[in-house]
Amino acid sequence: MHRKLRVVVVGGVAAGPKTASKIIRNVPDAEVTVVEKGEFLSYAGCGFPYYISGLVKEQKELMATPAGIVRDAAFFEKVKNIRVINHCEVAGIDRAKKTVFVKCGCGEERVLDYDKLVLATGASPLRPPLPGIALRNIFTLHGVEDAEGIKSVLARGKATDAVIVGGGLIGIEMAEALILRGCRVTIVEMMDHILSMFDPEMASLVEKYAESKGIRILGGTKVLGFEGSEDVAKVLTDHETLRADMVIMSVGVRPNVSLAKSCGLELGRTGAIKVNSQMQSSDPDIYAVGDCAETVNLVSGKACFVPLGSTANKHGRVAANSISGIRDEFNGVLGSTICKLFEFTAAKTGLSEREAEKEGFDPVICLSPSLDRAHFMPCAKLLYLKLVADKSTRRLLGVQAVGPGDCDKRVDTAVAAISAKMSVDDVGNLDLCYAPPYAPAMDNLIVAANILRNKLDGLMSGIKPEEVKAKLARRENCLLLDVRTPDEFEQGKIEPCMHVPLGKLRSSLSVLDAYKNTEIIVFCKISLRGYEAARILGEAGFRDVKVMDGGVLMWC
Amino acid sequence: MHRKLRVVVVGGVAAGPKTASKIIRNVPDAEVTVVEKGEFLSYAGCGFPYYISGLVKEQKELMATPAGIVRDAAFFEKVKNIRVINHCEVAGIDRAKKTVFVKCGCGEERVLDYDKLVLATGASPLRPPLPGIALRNIFTLHGVEDAEGIKSVLARGKATDAVIVGGGLIGIEMAEALILRGCRVTIVEMMDHILSMFDPEMASLVEKYAESKGIRILGGTKVLGFEGSEDVAKVLTDHETLRADMVIMSVGVRPNVSLAKSCGLELGRTGAIKVNSQMQSSDPDIYAVGDCAETVNLVSGKACFVPLGSTANKHGRVAANSISGIRDEFNGVLGSTICKLFEFTAAKTGLSEREAEKEGFDPVICLSPSLDRAHFMPCAKLLYLKLVADKSTRRLLGVQAVGPGDCDKRVDTAVAAISAKMSVDDVGNLDLCYAPPYAPAMDNLIVAANILRNKLDGLMSGIKPEEVKAKLARRENCLLLDVRTPDEFEQGKIEPCMHVPLGKLRSSLSVLDAYKNTEIIVFCKISLRGYEAARILGEAGFRDVKVMDGGVLMWC
Repeated sequence: MHRKLRVVVVGGVAAGPKTASKIIRNVPDAEVTVVEKGEFLSYAGCGFPYYISGLVKEQKELMATPAGIVRDAAFFEKVKNIRVINHCEVAGIDRAKKTVFVKCGCGEERVLDYDKLVLATGASPLRPPLPGIALRNIFTLHGVEDAEGIKSVLARGKATDAVIVGGGLIGIEMAEALILRGCRVTIVEMMDHILSMFDPEMASLVEKYAESKGIRILGGTKVLGFEGSEDVAKVLTDHETLRADMVIMSVGVRPNVSLAKSCGLELGRTGAIKVNSQMQSSDPDIYAVGDCAETVNLVSGKACFVPLGSTANKHGRVAANSISGIRDEFNGVLGSTICKLFEFTAAKTGLSEREAEKEGFDPVICLSPSLDRAHFMPCAKLLYLKLVADKSTRRLLGVQAVGPGDCDKRVDTAVAAISAKMSVDDVGNLDLCYAPPYAPAMDNLIVAANILRNKLDGLMSGIKPEEVKAKLARRENCLLLDVRTPDEFEQGKIEPCMHVPLGKLRSSLSVLDAYKNTEIIVFCKISLRGYEAARILGEAGFRDVKVMDGGVLMWC
Repeated sequence: MHRKLRVVVVGGVAAGPKTASKIIRNVPDAEVTVVEKGEFLSYAGCGFPYYISGLVKEQKELMATPAGIVRDAAFFEKVKNIRVINHCEVAGIDRAKKTVFVKCGCGEERVLDYDKLVLATGASPLRPPLPGIALRNIFTLHGVEDAEGIKSVLARGKATDAVIVGGGLIGIEMAEALILRGCRVTIVEMMDHILSMFDPEMASLVEKYAESKGIRILGGTKVLGFEGSEDVAKVLTDHETLRADMVIMSVGVRPNVSLAKSCGLELGRTGAIKVNSQMQSSDPDIYAVGDCAETVNLVSGKACFVPLGSTANKHGRVAANSISGIRDEFNGVLGSTICKLFEFTAAKTGLSEREAEKEGFDPVICLSPSLDRAHFMPCAKLLYLKLVADKSTRRLLGVQAVGPGDCDKRVDTAVAAISAKMSVDDVGNLDLCYAPPYAPAMDNLIVAANILRNKLDGLMSGIKPEEVKAKLARRENCLLLDVRTPDEFEQGKIEPCMHVPLGKLRSSLSVLDAYKNTEIIVFCKISLRGYEAARILGEAGFRDVKVMDGGVLMWC
């Protein structure tokens, strides 16, 4: 007799319901049970900042399918034929007997048998045990309750001063939301810069913009504790004390692995549950998916912990297929990340320069700021790109994009390119779509790839603006040469420097005679004309000519 | 003694100046001469529709660098050290002597020696020899003169009725421009649909939108001639006679190859100059770049003629590198194409279904309309995707995207994926950037790839709306089953059909008992719930269940 496949899924927010639904679609007569400790199922937690800002009007929009149907237990039962037990917690797993011990909120206890068990236990926000952390109005942003708590403080007009601890993705999205709700917002970040997955010069561009929108950023600042009577009133840091009517703690999340640990499953070096490419844990009958599972960075080949809703869905599909006997595998992520701050985007995939160095690559980089559409189109916006490639293999390792321009398109294109291990030469020849309202004739990604090709071909030697600044600070003997037009030069100079417009350079070489053996650093607005100038100087016998990466636009 | 490299470039619009400039950057002491028969150098012809609409205010914006410097002969001389001879035509090439014979507008004649010759002779718009074609106000859109001519007719208020012959990219961009300038616009297209590189159901979506913007489209209509006294007044077609104060002929372009032919260079089967991956013609000292050169479609492996500014730049770089002794190659294009029509985009890369069939693939397709951002974000817009994959290898062959949503991002991502010969499984696991303002948690491209995976895995059998319509027309015995909510159903029904909301399907299977052996075609708004329903029916023993691709949204 054919016995039905019994699957128990622990966790009902993202990866859990996805896995359950896909199993039923693959094996319609499977008996699938989802156990969820909370009330809510399958909600879009990443929408909370937009619910708090008021852009999303109703909580139920975050709970509903695109067709407007709220995914409650009855929905899963009727539509998906999945049994959902919510308000219940899994208290233990007996791997030998293949049973799960469930304790319900109502006091009831039950034992569920499984053929396959799926752990989708998610992750929890870190809440460091600082003095005063238990004061009222100190929130994390994790569950529906957090979002409602923040909204109710805002509704009562109680939050004039909001302090966000941690300048990661959630910190930045919350900064926008709280500014929109009329708060004065300060972000306190322990590292030198917010968005620590970005290289410093790219994060700086976001910081500068954030400050222009009224967000105060305190980098390199450690929170020591909180003060207040019942409600929080002050945030103590190692630099200053901040007034605070509300605090958002967004200092990262930790995978929920206590259940996995208690039944002896292997954890990875990141602390998340170790899985293979079928999402199987060290017990082949137990799968782990979503934020509790470890994954692999496809560029470095190393284990990583990158909890994201998009990845959770892919995990769920692969685990469900594996459980259903359909060949499938999940090989890893690129750490792709994106966030919006008003009219600015910050997006990244693959390795930053710093990460590439740490992983043992020999990175070559370029900074390429330019318009994201044909320059004559009024809709064109500035896009700052940084590409990181490996010197010996010419392989593209990572792309960072920030600015008002269309960052997500370039980074998603790079996601496919990096996944395919493309070289910068491959990227430079991609047949990307071109029409003036969408891109320049040479797309920003192609221009940036070509700069890297020029560097790798020995045609160009770059120097980063921060290195130039350090040289100036050390009073090193070098000449800065600005080759922009006189108009551009008058609008903003880098001092000290010499100014020779590119069009006059060939006929003015004699004025530079004294610098034949000096280090010359040329630049223009974006350093395309700077590159042209460097080639002219090189040909004319100047021995040490460098191009300042990204030009004046990257000189923050 | 080191003799300087002498290069002559024929053509000064796009690929020519690019090749010349890159040679000088590679080999600064090269002697490079550009011969151009017109006045204008290096202009952005693809900007003409936006200049005509008034979005781009001044002609010189199309001639200038992003820094605002007009690229005239003096600019090339001073900045690039390139000699430009404009108003001059190359009258002959002596390949044995390696000389070029130049006739100037002033009557002067000269002979230029070359080590390497670069042909960048471009393409010319087709102007079929129809009766009345010489009447005034019948334009093509190729050079600056065309754009100025059209603008001056518009300025004189002479063009109330504009007829565009040819519904390709330029035809569509011009339709928008002329509507914005207050014209009544009709597009006459010989094929059944405009945008013939798209599959019919995708082109239909663009047509429907175009009509909503007041553009009249006459498909399957042949122009027979023109009538008028001096100015054109009527367009005669095989269906009706159209009033016309202005006619734009946009029926394609033909490569300018007379020079290449006259000196015996080999042409490809497309009629363009045959080149290898270094852009060398059949004479290794003569290169061909840009719109006059043939290229290869990377998916079909066949020669093709796809004249585009973006490709011209890549050709120029590769030819220049090859001439300068730097290893580089251009392997081909995907035929990527994009155009904007008001708030609508139509973009494509790789092969359409029809093209895939013609090239001998066994295509499997999916139609996937859905929102381009998280569904709860007010900025989310509809995006219609069609993916084409090869059945046996699961390789992605092509992507078409139309709609108000973010088409260019998905198609550019697909460009990289198809270039890397990714399977739909690879695409389904791409770590694309996710945050609610940019994409759904499962990006449209990933959802579409997953639909294809489901089809390839035998979990789903699809049928296109047009095939369903044909079945209904033939009165075939089949049941259409709509599984949307009652509200959705009331808002617009496909008749005849049965309506059982997905949530009630499992408990209502008995009402379908009579149809166990009937062909059942299920659908919802986008056919995600339709797929779910098909799985339920399949499990319940219904023998022939299909999902209507793209659901109600693709039922035009």
